[in-house]
Amino acid sequence: METTGKIIKCKAAVAWEIGKPLSIEEIEVAPPKSHEVRVKIIATGICGTDDHVLSGSFPKVNYPVIPGHEGAGIVESVGEGVTGLNPGDKVIPLCLPQCGECSSCLKSNTNCCLKTHLNEPQNLMPDKTSRFTCKGKLIHHFLWISTFSEYTVMPDSTVVKIDAAAPLDKVCLFGCGFSTGYGAALNTAQVMPGSTCAIFGLGGVGLSVVMGCKAAGASRIIGIDINKDKFLKAKELGATECLNPQDYKKPIQELLVEMTGHGVDYAFEVVGCLDTLTAALASCHLGCGVCVMVGVPPLGSRLTFDPMLLFTGRTLKGCFIGGWKMKDSIPQLVSSYMEKKFNSDALISHTLPFSQISEGFNLLHSGKSIRIVLVF
Amino acid sequence: METTGKIIKCKAAVAWEIGKPLSIEEIEVAPPKSHEVRVKIIATGICGTDDHVLSGSFPKVNYPVIPGHEGAGIVESVGEGVTGLNPGDKVIPLCLPQCGECSSCLKSNTNCCLKTHLNEPQNLMPDKTSRFTCKGKLIHHFLWISTFSEYTVMPDSTVVKIDAAAPLDKVCLFGCGFSTGYGAALNTAQVMPGSTCAIFGLGGVGLSVVMGCKAAGASRIIGIDINKDKFLKAKELGATECLNPQDYKKPIQELLVEMTGHGVDYAFEVVGCLDTLTAALASCHLGCGVCVMVGVPPLGSRLTFDPMLLFTGRTLKGCFIGGWKMKDSIPQLVSSYMEKKFNSDALISHTLPFSQISEGFNLLHSGKSIRIVLVF
Repeated sequence: METTGKIIKCKAAVAWEIGKPLSIEEIEVAPPKSHEVRVKIIATGICGTDDHVLSGSFPKVNYPVIPGHEGAGIVESVGEGVTGLNPGDKVIPLCLPQCGECSSCLKSNTNCCLKTHLNEPQNLMPDKTSRFTCKGKLIHHFLWISTFSEYTVMPDSTVVKIDAAAPLDKVCLFGCGFSTGYGAALNTAQVMPGSTCAIFGLGGVGLSVVMGCKAAGASRIIGIDINKDKFLKAKELGATECLNPQDYKKPIQELLVEMTGHGVDYAFEVVGCLDTLTAALASCHLGCGVCVMVGVPPLGSRLTFDPMLLFTGRTLKGCFIGGWKMKDSIPQLVSSYMEKKFNSDALISHTLPFSQISEGFNLLHSGKSIRIVLVF
Repeated sequence: METTGKIIKCKAAVAWEIGKPLSIEEIEVAPPKSHEVRVKIIATGICGTDDHVLSGSFPKVNYPVIPGHEGAGIVESVGEGVTGLNPGDKVIPLCLPQCGECSSCLKSNTNCCLKTHLNEPQNLMPDKTSRFTCKGKLIHHFLWISTFSEYTVMPDSTVVKIDAAAPLDKVCLFGCGFSTGYGAALNTAQVMPGSTCAIFGLGGVGLSVVMGCKAAGASRIIGIDINKDKFLKAKELGATECLNPQDYKKPIQELLVEMTGHGVDYAFEVVGCLDTLTAALASCHLGCGVCVMVGVPPLGSRLTFDPMLLFTGRTLKGCFIGGWKMKDSIPQLVSSYMEKKFNSDALISHTLPFSQISEGFNLLHSGKSIRIVLVF
């Protein structure tokens, strides 16, 4: 890394075009402008969503781009007008902004800030320019935070200061995966003590749902996956039993209804598969079961099911980053972690140097990892 | 009406087979057996669901059958083991039982008693016999209550005593239509004060949703119907504005999102049309809007929509008789009516003698009625 004036030269992983693997490059990172923050990333997780960027199945991405959205780092410098953040502060970049001013931020019951990529592109900074260049070319941002770079720039609405004692190579998971799953149980479903839960998909996010259900006091937590290698960890984190649908002739929803009498109180779909989502909905208790869609459905897909599944009073709801208003909540989650209220470290199956990012993606594809953390 | 021993002969409207109009017949009504109650019906509303019975589009009906499920009457006699009900008591039959013992009845968050017709047939009494005969033939019950009969027999789990001063030709609506709509707003959606609501379909149930939204303190209540003749009554009952989708080139969901900034807080589908349901869902505020399915979807239909409508946190939920645990709640609703907390009388557009039941169904089909009450 070499600092030239206010421009920083450093390593980053660039996706030059759809379908090509990431390439580690030396890039230039411009200083932060007004209401922007430049952060030295210390650690970043690899999330399935980053893989979707590489394959072109994440919407509204411009290439070349620096992916990564589950990071933790230290403020290097701040632009004009930034308050509450200073060089040296430990921070987590937020893949979901909290601008504090929009219709959603002013409501108490949603975290879906209108500055999110679903409403406006986050591929350039809000002033419509990039802070990244490589070999003379403009490189796009991803979700405004691009954590696959040793240095990155983001709007001050997408970064929050955390406890100075927090281990960044652990709490980086709070930037996406852990928060999404844990919040799906606590915020979106609002799991009640003594209830019965089913979690479809036991990857890093699904296991975080298991942890959330346990924290909420669920008495029966049923983990479901077609890969039984996931079961040991699921039970370690709170699952009371685990099922492989391929071990049964009858559909999993029928099995779950039989096992529980009349269906589960809460079902979580954490695969991103619409057939699994309808099975999860059908697994819910008649009249009151709540099915939470955590997995991201395939781009352009259509969900189809018998509406009578809902008629008697079942609920189907979505969940965006666990329903957390991230700027308000992530520092609290970090504090809870420091107080050992949950052990999200158990989700980290591999820690690799950033230079091995391609090996990280290979591990992701192998199904043999849970969460992979890259450290700079 | 002639009483012979313990069998009562009286008038009833019989649906002999699918697709045939109702026929008023003299029938025999056997006395109530153990845990059954025989009720003299004083008034009964006509609901679209009864029309579905005639057309064969209501599931699991056996013919010949006596429809009707929105009635009010007076206890004539009770079978063994019935407690808390005596001859002369004013009662409302419950189209949704509350057995008090099943998994649903023991939960606080659902009214979907497992004794409902969705789980087991209600075409015969629980002992699998009928109390109705006509011309020597067995006539089936409908939802265990068959209110299109001067006398009818029902299990004690499907009838509740109400205030002795209640006008039966008014409060009969609480047996289905009014409770369904009013409860959709208060129980299912739990409309918050100051919120914005859209109601798709301004028939008797839709207008009851309007009343529920008003009672909950919604500040903006948008009524939507393709029949603008419904608008005057909707405004009288609480709608702050009304829209006819046919007056606009753009889809109604786009119009509603524009009108409200970012979508409504609560949308209610009260038509029973799946295209309307997806429009209602898309009309909801990103991240937190709640869409309630009140209308009964067509038998065997499939709901299809873009799952991203849910992903950011919208909620889609069903509503069964307004979410009321009927035995607990109907007497309270009657008390609120007696205290003039709402004016459900405004929903009654026509009151006819029972002998004019066919004219009542013609009025229902004409679209020129709201709720029609038949009196014996």
